[in-house]
Amino acid sequence: MITLTTDFGLRGPYAGETKVAMLRINPKAVIVDVSHSITRHSILEGSFVMEGVVKYSPAGTVHVGVIDPGVGTSRRAVIIEGEQFLVVPDNGLPTLPLKHIKARKAWEIDLERVKRFTKLEVSSTFHGRDVFGPVGALLDAGVGPEELGSEIPLKSLTLLDVAPRREGDLWVLKVIYVDDFGNLILNLEDYERPREVELIEGGLKLPYLDTYGLVEPGELLALPGSHGYLEIAVNQGSASERLNLRVGDEVRVRLVR
Amino acid sequence: MITLTTDFGLRGPYAGETKVAMLRINPKAVIVDVSHSITRHSILEGSFVMEGVVKYSPAGTVHVGVIDPGVGTSRRAVIIEGEQFLVVPDNGLPTLPLKHIKARKAWEIDLERVKRFTKLEVSSTFHGRDVFGPVGALLDAGVGPEELGSEIPLKSLTLLDVAPRREGDLWVLKVIYVDDFGNLILNLEDYERPREVELIEGGLKLPYLDTYGLVEPGELLALPGSHGYLEIAVNQGSASERLNLRVGDEVRVRLVR
Amino acid sequence: MITLTTDFGLRGPYAGETKVAMLRINPKAVIVDVSHSITRHSILEGSFVMEGVVKYSPAGTVHVGVIDPGVGTSRRAVIIEGEQFLVVPDNGLPTLPLKHIKARKAWEIDLERVKRFTKLEVSSTFHGRDVFGPVGALLDAGVGPEELGSEIPLKSLTLLDVAPRREGDLWVLKVIYVDDFGNLILNLEDYERPREVELIEGGLKLPYLDTYGLVEPGELLALPGSHGYLEIAVNQGSASERLNLRVGDEVRVRLVR
Repeated sequence: MITLTTDFGLRGPYAGETKVAMLRINPKAVIVDVSHSITRHSILEGSFVMEGVVKYSPAGTVHVGVIDPGVGTSRRAVIIEGEQFLVVPDNGLPTLPLKHIKARKAWEIDLERVKRFTKLEVSSTFHGRDVFGPVGALLDAGVGPEELGSEIPLKSLTLLDVAPRREGDLWVLKVIYVDDFGNLILNLEDYERPREVELIEGGLKLPYLDTYGLVEPGELLALPGSHGYLEIAVNQGSASERLNLRVGDEVRVRLVR
Repeated sequence: MITLTTDFGLRGPYAGETKVAMLRINPKAVIVDVSHSITRHSILEGSFVMEGVVKYSPAGTVHVGVIDPGVGTSRRAVIIEGEQFLVVPDNGLPTLPLKHIKARKAWEIDLERVKRFTKLEVSSTFHGRDVFGPVGALLDAGVGPEELGSEIPLKSLTLLDVAPRREGDLWVLKVIYVDDFGNLILNLEDYERPREVELIEGGLKLPYLDTYGLVEPGELLALPGSHGYLEIAVNQGSASERLNLRVGDEVRVRLVR
Repeated sequence: MITLTTDFGLRGPYAGETKVAMLRINPKAVIVDVSHSITRHSILEGSFVMEGVVKYSPAGTVHVGVIDPGVGTSRRAVIIEGEQFLVVPDNGLPTLPLKHIKARKAWEIDLERVKRFTKLEVSSTFHGRDVFGPVGALLDAGVGPEELGSEIPLKSLTLLDVAPRREGDLWVLKVIYVDDFGNLILNLEDYERPREVELIEGGLKLPYLDTYGLVEPGELLALPGSHGYLEIAVNQGSASERLNLRVGDEVRVRLVR
C-alpha cells in the first residue's frame, strides 16, 4: 500500500500524472489518495496529515509526501526506512510521522538511479511525478532503498520545531493543524486530563469535555482530539475564526485540574 | 467493494486515516471514494448522494456513510443488511438508500466487539476511522453483522421526512439536493410527464424538456433528473441562485399536462 | 487501468455513481481519479489535463473524459483507439491527448449496444455514468470497440484550435491551462531555449529560468513547464492574477535569445 499526500490541488493533472506514473512502474500498487489539498507549501500541515495516516497504517506501508516549495533547488529528496517508509523532500515534512515509524535508516535519493528505473526525464519543477511517486512505487514493489540512493545519517534530516514549551505553569503551544471545521489542534500530547483549559490571551476558561455536542452550539470547549493532541473547538462553529488563530500561530494555555 | 461518503473534507487526514484503517483490516478491499465533501452535517444531502450510488452498485456492495453530527453522544451506529449493506449512524442518513436495498435486518454496532477486531481504541470524536470504516471493511471481508452488534428492529431506525405532500392540485415538495451546477432536485418521482411545471411562488411556468440545451442559456426549465427525481435547472446557470432555494427548502409546484 | 477526468464536482453523487457503474461491469478495473474538478464545461482545460495523464500512462490505458456541455443533444460519443484508448464526447476534448496515442481508428458509440451490456437505461443528462464510464470499463475488460459502435473517419473528429500562431517575429499564444498556483501554461512546445521572454502587452521582459525559486518571491519569470509547454509564473504568487489572464486568452510573446 502506498499513500499520497500533496499540495497539487484537485483540478489539474498533477495528482493524476503522479498516480499513472506510479502504476506504470508498479501496476499492482494500491494507491490511497490521502490529500491533494494541503495548503500550498504548508509543510507543518502536511506533516500533521501524514502523521495521522502513518499511525493507522500497517507495517510496510510506503508514504509519499510532496509539499515541496524547494523543488529544483538543492534540497535533498529522501527515503526514510523504519516499520514503514517515508518518501519526502528533506524540508521538515517527515517530522511528525517520524514519531511513529521507528526509523532505522535514511537515504538521499539519486535522481540518476531513479531515471534508470523509470526511463523518463526528471523535470525541474515536478518531482512528485518524476521522483517521489516512482520511488514510492519501486519501494512498494520490493526494490531496496540502497538501489535508489546513498545512505545518509538520520540525524542529518531537517526537522521542524514542534516541541511544546513550558513558561512557569503555562504551556506555550503551537497550532499544528486547523481542520475544515475550524477546530484547532495544538502540539500537546500525553497530558493529564484537566477540568478546564484557560487561554491566557483573552482570559477564556474552556470546559474540557469528551465531545463537541456536550456544550451548546456556538460555545467553545477543549477536548482530547482524535489524534491524541489537545484540541480547541466550537460546537457547530469555527474556533479558528472565533479566536483568530491559524496553523503555526502560538497560544499560551494553562491546564486547570 | 466498499463505498465511502463523508463530510470529512478533502484537505485533512480524516479520509486517508479511514481508508488506511480499512485496508489494515482488509488489504484486498476495493474502496470507492464517493464524496468527502458532503456539506458539513447535512444528513439529507448525504442521504441523496448515497442513494444514487446504491442504485448503481452491484449486490453485496458495502456502503459506509459518515455524516455524523451526533458522534460521541448516544446516537446508535448501525448496520443495515439487504441486497447491499449500509453502515451508518442512526440519524436518518440511510433514509433514501433504504428504498433500494430490500432491507431485511438491522444491527446496532457494539463498539467493544469492533475493538476486538481492530485492536484499537475508539475515540469519542471520529467514528469514521474507528467504527464505521472498520465495520465496512470487516463486512466486505465476510464477517457477519451478528459478530459486530445486536439485532434491532428495522422499524426502530430513525428516518427523515422525505415524502412529497399534496395540497389540492399542488405538490408541496422539498429540495433534497442542489448539485454543483445549482440544479435543484425535488422529492417527486414516478410522476406523469407534464408539459409545464408551474412554480407557485413567483408564478413562473417552466417548460418540461429532456435536457438543458433545449432552452436558451440563462433560461429556466424543468426536466427529468438523471436520478428519477423532478429537477429544476437553468441552462448554463444556477437555479438555486435564481430562485434562492437551498437543500431542505420547500417549494409549491403544479404539474401542467 | 482506466483514468477518469470530469467536471462532475467532488461533492455530489456523480463521480461515485460513475465509478460503481464501471465496477459493476468490470469488478477488477483499476480506476484512477484524475480530476472531477475541471472548470465546468471547460473543454480546453479538460483536454490539457487528459494530455498530461496520457503522456505518463502505459500502453493499453483507457482514458475516460467527460466534459460534456452538449450531453443529450446530437453530439457524438466516441472511442478513439491507438496505443491507448480515449472515450470522450466528440466536442474537441481529445485534441491534446491525440498528440500522444498514435490514433489508428475511431468509433461512434451506439447507445443501444451499450445498453445491451449494462442492462440499464441511458439518461439524457448523465452520459458519464450511463455511457462513457461503462464503455471505458468494457474496453478495459477486453470488449472490442467494434462491439460498441460504428467506425467513423479519424478526420471527422471535432478538434480545438490549439496551434501557436506566428506574427512577424512574435508568437501569438493561447493560455491552455492555469494551474492552482496561478501559473500560466501557453501552447508553445519544442522551442529553442530563450534568455528572456517578452510579453508585448505591458512590455514586460521575463527571465527564462529553470525553476520558480531562482527569482525573488513575487517576481515574474518564464520557464520550461513540467509538461513541455512554455510557462509564465510568479514565484510564490499567481501570474494569472498579476497579468489578468485566463484559460483561452491570447498573449503576444517574443522569445529573446
